[in-house]
Amino acid sequence: MEQVKVVLRDDEIPRRWYNIQADLPTPMSPPLHPGTGQPVKPEDLAPVFPMNLIEQEASSERWIDIPEPVLQKYALWRPTPLCRARNFEKLLDAPVKIYYKNEGYSPAGSHKPNTAIPQAYYNKEFGIKRLSTETGAGQWGSALSMACQMFGLECRVFMVRVSYEQKPYRRMMMNVWGAECIPSPSVRTAAGRKVLEEHPDSPGSLGIAISEAVEDAVTGKDARYSLGSVLNHVLLHQTVIGLEAKKQFEKIGEYPDVVLGCAGGGSNFAGISLPFVMDRIHGKQVRIVGAEPSSCPTLTRGPFGYDHGDLACMTPLLPMYTLGHDFVPAPIHAGGLRYHGMAPIVSHLLKENLIEARSYNQLETFDAGVKWARTEGFIPAPETTHAIAAVVEEAQRAKEEGKERTILFNWSGHGLVDLASYDAYLTGKLSQYELPEEEIERAKRTISRYPRL
Amino acid sequence: MEQVKVVLRDDEIPRRWYNIQADLPTPMSPPLHPGTGQPVKPEDLAPVFPMNLIEQEASSERWIDIPEPVLQKYALWRPTPLCRARNFEKLLDAPVKIYYKNEGYSPAGSHKPNTAIPQAYYNKEFGIKRLSTETGAGQWGSALSMACQMFGLECRVFMVRVSYEQKPYRRMMMNVWGAECIPSPSVRTAAGRKVLEEHPDSPGSLGIAISEAVEDAVTGKDARYSLGSVLNHVLLHQTVIGLEAKKQFEKIGEYPDVVLGCAGGGSNFAGISLPFVMDRIHGKQVRIVGAEPSSCPTLTRGPFGYDHGDLACMTPLLPMYTLGHDFVPAPIHAGGLRYHGMAPIVSHLLKENLIEARSYNQLETFDAGVKWARTEGFIPAPETTHAIAAVVEEAQRAKEEGKERTILFNWSGHGLVDLASYDAYLTGKLSQYELPEEEIERAKRTISRYPRL
Repeated sequence: MEQVKVVLRDDEIPRRWYNIQADLPTPMSPPLHPGTGQPVKPEDLAPVFPMNLIEQEASSERWIDIPEPVLQKYALWRPTPLCRARNFEKLLDAPVKIYYKNEGYSPAGSHKPNTAIPQAYYNKEFGIKRLSTETGAGQWGSALSMACQMFGLECRVFMVRVSYEQKPYRRMMMNVWGAECIPSPSVRTAAGRKVLEEHPDSPGSLGIAISEAVEDAVTGKDARYSLGSVLNHVLLHQTVIGLEAKKQFEKIGEYPDVVLGCAGGGSNFAGISLPFVMDRIHGKQVRIVGAEPSSCPTLTRGPFGYDHGDLACMTPLLPMYTLGHDFVPAPIHAGGLRYHGMAPIVSHLLKENLIEARSYNQLETFDAGVKWARTEGFIPAPETTHAIAAVVEEAQRAKEEGKERTILFNWSGHGLVDLASYDAYLTGKLSQYELPEEEIERAKRTISRYPRL
Repeated sequence: MEQVKVVLRDDEIPRRWYNIQADLPTPMSPPLHPGTGQPVKPEDLAPVFPMNLIEQEASSERWIDIPEPVLQKYALWRPTPLCRARNFEKLLDAPVKIYYKNEGYSPAGSHKPNTAIPQAYYNKEFGIKRLSTETGAGQWGSALSMACQMFGLECRVFMVRVSYEQKPYRRMMMNVWGAECIPSPSVRTAAGRKVLEEHPDSPGSLGIAISEAVEDAVTGKDARYSLGSVLNHVLLHQTVIGLEAKKQFEKIGEYPDVVLGCAGGGSNFAGISLPFVMDRIHGKQVRIVGAEPSSCPTLTRGPFGYDHGDLACMTPLLPMYTLGHDFVPAPIHAGGLRYHGMAPIVSHLLKENLIEARSYNQLETFDAGVKWARTEGFIPAPETTHAIAAVVEEAQRAKEEGKERTILFNWSGHGLVDLASYDAYLTGKLSQYELPEEEIERAKRTISRYPRL
């Protein structure tokens, strides 16, 4: 029998997260206060996040210990197997070995619990009683609901109304885990009421939902806000994926030539790739590639500059590739990749040419996803199909060049709660979106208001 | 860190299935031909199943080699981890260790692929080009769709119309895996057309769907029928679960006092328990308990006798506990447990007092399922919640008796495609069903037409 999976025991879960801020060849620009335009100070963030996470956000320690209670919860499904996609390799008929980390094995079905668990833990440690957050497609909201339940915190999730209505299964998952899921805009917050007064039938947006969640957190007693991507500490927590993968490659005496992940806010991509970027910084030959939708091509076409993380301009200005905080993404099914910005760490790495980026339209990605499901069995999330499309492209290049290649990618989650998108694809109802050039010009104008980088 | 999971490598997947027919203390009664009432001969079944599976059905060899191509597909997700539910243990506060096999890790989300894969393989080997089957809730239909795709077979699934309409995600899974899913009753078969003439709005039933699938198979070219539970060869394939569990217990130097599984047709229950029943037959102290719905209490209240497997009386007469093939189950959410009969092997073991059975109503089981999800993270399928309810009862008994107990159960699948049932439970919309005594009398009358056992 040919080996398909490299498994690790519970006691082989990495004991420390990797903080790439310690290894960056050039320093990152600081986030700026939205009001003053000055670098954000820890106390500015104190109403929003607990101080232990704020410290982690700014830390330059290379290794940060994973607390024992977090490890114990990780062990419910971690380490995830490193799997070799031998059947997909045969289909592609190219000189490649394809490995993937199956993050769909978590109870919520994606990589999101890797940061939801520690965020709930650190908030609990800090004396917080309730977390508020927003969710678009629902992956993040469900992961945080589970994590809060496990650490005895209340959880409130503001879910974009159109998703709340179209994706009832995600809301139901949150309820099973004891969270309250509220369609946004809601009457619960001033931000929500303002929108509803002007647009009673508003379908909502991630921008509105963020505003509601932040307001709900900062006005609540012993409450804080939680974010599922973009920020440094979120990416830090996700590095457990790449660190495990490196241990697993060591066991079989291999090392990837290319590391791939889909990139929305940047957390799953960073999670698998940052430990390999570390090696690259230290001279190792390894390429790192982020895959994004051609309809939301932040890394491949967006300008680099300071921009807000949200539509309402409440968040600090972050140094990042961005399509402008006023960008309205096309209604593609990979909800997790419809974000205008990109994690500052990931943006900085691209700026420094330490990583690459590619974009794919959703007809290409669903084609890759269906081929995957029909050979490897597991049905990938719409987001994950972008990474698979990048694998297909890498394999084709390898074939053309006649060069062998070992590919590693992050299978960020399964698509069992997103099957309607596959149905739309298989029945010819999906459209292909390419972002018009005017949108890039608009993005440049948007960020021209803020300090230059 | 406390250990949570016992993992095995790919090359530790069992190489042989266990056939309990070799070890039964008393012989099982043979299946009878529905027309002649005589024991069924292999050639009688030849139009329905391929001869290699018919031979397996009747085999008395103790160990049957798992073919290499089947092992290779199993390795996509097997061995599944043996997990210890430490958080659920803490909640129950009883002197028990609770272990479970997580069969939700398969691509289809349940134990069903354990037999779908070999069934597709053996049919392919025999030269078959297409398989037909029926599905109620959709677990089996989706598993067979995936398996057929992997071995290059066409797959047609007749899905009970009411489920087809209420559970679109299962149909979509089948489509992603390339199968054709047809709402039953359909105009494709004489059986379906007959029903539609009389009842154009028929919601369908498993009995009708079986009739359609069998007819479609026997009238098709190079086509056969496939069944997801009940039969000996199906249970045989599932023993990979229990065999893995035994290896995993050996690794930690433990052995269960009780082995539990939910029981519908009997395949997941048999899958985890038959290798332990073998030990019990050979003198080992171990209790084996099947958990079923109180609304469909086949093992706990049904009479034992010959009965048909289907409503249309097309299948052989099987020796089993049964509520009568004309039984109409209450609309509980555990679709996989709404079957009037029980696998002849499981029935025989109960008759011989080698196993026990208990029943639970769905309010008890969903209560157990929600508690599980809120402590262990993973959301169990409605069927699986019956096994969890049995775990809760065993733990309470252990507490009352002040005796330590090691419990093993089969976590047969996740509930991510069955979240609507949790929503109904959480919003107080679920009813409790207890089968009236008249139904047992009716069942006795039904089987009184057939040869006595």
